[in-house]
Amino acid sequence: MPQPRQVLVVSDHTGITAENMARALLAHFPDEDLNYSLRPFIDTVAKARALAAELEAADTQAEKPLLFTTITVHEVLAELRRAPAVHFDLLSRSVQQLEEEFGRPAVRLPGRFHDMADQQGYLGRMEALDFALATDDGVGDKQYGLADVILVGVSRAGKTPTSLFLALQHGIRASNYPLAEDDFETEQLPRPLEPYRTKLFGLTIDPQRLHAIRTQRKAGSRYASLEQCEYEVHRAERLYQKWNIPVRDTTSSSVEEIASGILSYLR
Amino acid sequence: MPQPRQVLVVSDHTGITAENMARALLAHFPDEDLNYSLRPFIDTVAKARALAAELEAADTQAEKPLLFTTITVHEVLAELRRAPAVHFDLLSRSVQQLEEEFGRPAVRLPGRFHDMADQQGYLGRMEALDFALATDDGVGDKQYGLADVILVGVSRAGKTPTSLFLALQHGIRASNYPLAEDDFETEQLPRPLEPYRTKLFGLTIDPQRLHAIRTQRKAGSRYASLEQCEYEVHRAERLYQKWNIPVRDTTSSSVEEIASGILSYLR
Repeated sequence: MPQPRQVLVVSDHTGITAENMARALLAHFPDEDLNYSLRPFIDTVAKARALAAELEAADTQAEKPLLFTTITVHEVLAELRRAPAVHFDLLSRSVQQLEEEFGRPAVRLPGRFHDMADQQGYLGRMEALDFALATDDGVGDKQYGLADVILVGVSRAGKTPTSLFLALQHGIRASNYPLAEDDFETEQLPRPLEPYRTKLFGLTIDPQRLHAIRTQRKAGSRYASLEQCEYEVHRAERLYQKWNIPVRDTTSSSVEEIASGILSYLR
Repeated sequence: MPQPRQVLVVSDHTGITAENMARALLAHFPDEDLNYSLRPFIDTVAKARALAAELEAADTQAEKPLLFTTITVHEVLAELRRAPAVHFDLLSRSVQQLEEEFGRPAVRLPGRFHDMADQQGYLGRMEALDFALATDDGVGDKQYGLADVILVGVSRAGKTPTSLFLALQHGIRASNYPLAEDDFETEQLPRPLEPYRTKLFGLTIDPQRLHAIRTQRKAGSRYASLEQCEYEVHRAERLYQKWNIPVRDTTSSSVEEIASGILSYLR
């Protein structure tokens, strides 16, 4: 059997962006059999040299690894380029283009793209995360006045992952409130949500999918039954409609996609 | 006063990767005054044409916006290129290079880099998030047997954001356990951690920084006092040393960096 092709993602920092870029590129070649490995914090000439030597030692007649890098420090990059690999330099060309556009040289230091360089933004994200945790799943409703958005939906519609992601990634103060049977007796908004109608954002989901998710949790329970899932989703959707709450179907969306939709709405 | 330069990030999907790339590039030019805006889900010729027309209408004698895109569908990209902007095409060149390397054409469809394309990985991340929440802050210790890693540290050392990030981003089942005064009476490991010594990973933090963080939460409290912070950090570090627990200082690290360090350790 043929070996999967090695994909090396080399970064002078965490490598998260580099890995996402490499995956975005390679997603254009769905039939390739690939094996990713991440080499973060290659931020000195010595480390780059060691990595190149390691690849040299492992070099056989087989296909060379695909090496993706976001490093822009010339000396470090020069060492890496000696490695036996097919090189994909993800940043350098665009940095050059920007140098021309701005008419000034780039500051080429390792880890320029430091997540904490933007201290204010970083602290905002951490505060937003605290907030999301403190107002998860219907608790902490006294703090709803501080929320940027309050996600509503039935149990297991995707509220918690989405609110945590909005906080961690985007610094959005996202609370979430579960709609349960009690809330469906009338068609009124649940009491804690009433003052915050304009902050509500509804999540919905295909009842079949919800049934599958809940079955994984509590197989055979009334909670997981298809009837119950259909009932809850139906009533939740009626509530959204009646109160003019924007809504998004999470059935085949990732947390990133749902969050992105909510962000666009908020902006 | 000069206007900040407009930065447009255009994607046929959520645009998260594109935005991170644009920020990584522009971090090389720290003195530029920039104003980012994200245009996700530009996945049809019609949408691209509308965006180009919008930029055309807004076009003045002033500097053209910097337009970053990760779109690889030729027709969509061609429409975008008509827009009055300085264009940075982040993927196309590397996709071409990969076509040559693989000897086959790329599949150019909008949103190829779909977060849920990898269903298994996605479900794993969501399960890991459930797990991290269920074993956050010392609760759910009966499930520690299922954990990939158990973060330990004093209150506010960064355990919760790190465990949630490890789960959401990397699908790692990360629990976390707070070290508090009771745990420092002896130099034994807290009882719930004993069977899982090899899964422990310690977080530490500069006492001054901890004092500042805790003061924001409960100003003037014993909990926030510098003495208390010094005592707890000191005792926690002794515990790490005695029990040979790997440790990472979170004082000036972002969640992404801490998580990345833990990942490298786990691998």
